[in-house]
Amino acid sequence: MSENNTGSRPTILVTNDDGMFAPGIKALVSIAKEFGEVVVVAPDSPQSGMGHAITIDDPIRLHKVDVFPEIEAWECSGTPVDCVKLAKQVIFNDRPAPDLCVSGINHGSNASLNIIYSGTMSAAMEASLEGINSIGFSLLDYTFDADFEASRPFVAAIISEALKNGLGPARLLNVNIPKLSREEIKGVKVCRQGNARWVEKFQEAVDPRGKKYYWLTGQFENQEEADDTDIWALDNGYISVVPSMHDLTDYKALEPLKSLEKINGPYVT
Amino acid sequence: MSENNTGSRPTILVTNDDGMFAPGIKALVSIAKEFGEVVVVAPDSPQSGMGHAITIDDPIRLHKVDVFPEIEAWECSGTPVDCVKLAKQVIFNDRPAPDLCVSGINHGSNASLNIIYSGTMSAAMEASLEGINSIGFSLLDYTFDADFEASRPFVAAIISEALKNGLGPARLLNVNIPKLSREEIKGVKVCRQGNARWVEKFQEAVDPRGKKYYWLTGQFENQEEADDTDIWALDNGYISVVPSMHDLTDYKALEPLKSLEKINGPYVT
Repeated sequence: MSENNTGSRPTILVTNDDGMFAPGIKALVSIAKEFGEVVVVAPDSPQSGMGHAITIDDPIRLHKVDVFPEIEAWECSGTPVDCVKLAKQVIFNDRPAPDLCVSGINHGSNASLNIIYSGTMSAAMEASLEGINSIGFSLLDYTFDADFEASRPFVAAIISEALKNGLGPARLLNVNIPKLSREEIKGVKVCRQGNARWVEKFQEAVDPRGKKYYWLTGQFENQEEADDTDIWALDNGYISVVPSMHDLTDYKALEPLKSLEKINGPYVT
Repeated sequence: MSENNTGSRPTILVTNDDGMFAPGIKALVSIAKEFGEVVVVAPDSPQSGMGHAITIDDPIRLHKVDVFPEIEAWECSGTPVDCVKLAKQVIFNDRPAPDLCVSGINHGSNASLNIIYSGTMSAAMEASLEGINSIGFSLLDYTFDADFEASRPFVAAIISEALKNGLGPARLLNVNIPKLSREEIKGVKVCRQGNARWVEKFQEAVDPRGKKYYWLTGQFENQEEADDTDIWALDNGYISVVPSMHDLTDYKALEPLKSLEKINGPYVT
């Protein structure tokens, strides 16, 4: 479908965390414009690893730029989450909210635990919090000149489905694409967030003025063998789709922790 | 208990997002040192709203400072999450991991949805990801000179319980304290993360050089009436304790989305 509820073409908000000149957002814009009217809002500098950061103590700049032919595009000095907040409150202030937000295509994995560090996914999550169905796309290739050709038909199909049928009870999808050729990609798996962790090492070195510094490095380690996770899907040649949300309650711990409720008047002196 | 598994006093890592000179961390250090050996690692500038941001593209500085009498303290140029990563990998590199991490006391609420924007809670979550039981404390008072006296006995009791009995199946608690006198605080409620959202407005203005800027402002709005949420607890005079975690899978959406798995070979051309 290329029409929304009002009968016109849907509006698609495109954002990312790598900035306006990343090949990943160029690929995403070129796919999204087949399905609707595209509005781009992206940070004016790379914002990888920004998580759900927002700018509180500083002013934010926002201005229109001419980057994609015939596409409305805005550059923002804030974080990826700021981009989405400004899109909703300022750019779309006097228009209907976008029908869909797509973020990416990120250069590098946002599968498993990476979602909490990811600017790409935080931008998408912010849109979902604003009530806009939202999808973050990431390709498992960290290089700047990553090749998005194999991703293209799958990203298009997922966007098409999201516009046609919505996201079911979900508002947010975390989509990761293995670094494989079109023929090698086996298909799509809907899965849960896998249990993995970063095992960090800091590179320790001395700057030109003789002062010590640390630089983050590390390795991502899978912590489970299950076959229903995004890590398994990606390791086995599938595109992973994880419906995601923002309720961080650890429900299984609620009952066992009730004993803390004894902390009150007589307990605390 | 003031002994850990090895029979010595427990080690408590104290961190925050407001920096070393915030009254909230001073209060937390003075409470924590009653229960164990305290090591402080805090950012060298305020980092509110930094979410789970990490520093990837820049070096990070870390140096010892003499701020709290007889307490080992380190100042870090990175985000709250960077502080905890450096604590684990560098400061505790050749010592046993801390027995507990406490973050805060934050000046302002981290209840409900605030957890995803919060530097305080992201630091605590990072420690939990490293396998360290962790508690973020926040007082519902945004002012710099907030009064932490009424919080003190409750924070002490929760730390004491966590060291004595652990956190049950949880690894992370989000503790918020209403801005009330000691007598007005009714006790502790273990609850789920309430459903609320920020309704933003950006202040739009012009800088001294004539360029437009936006500055984030907004209002937090409760979205539900339920009496088992942190928002309800705080509105009704209780300290809220929400066991929290990092699995963002929207489980109820997994099955309805299975139809996306039709996107493969024959579907994508």
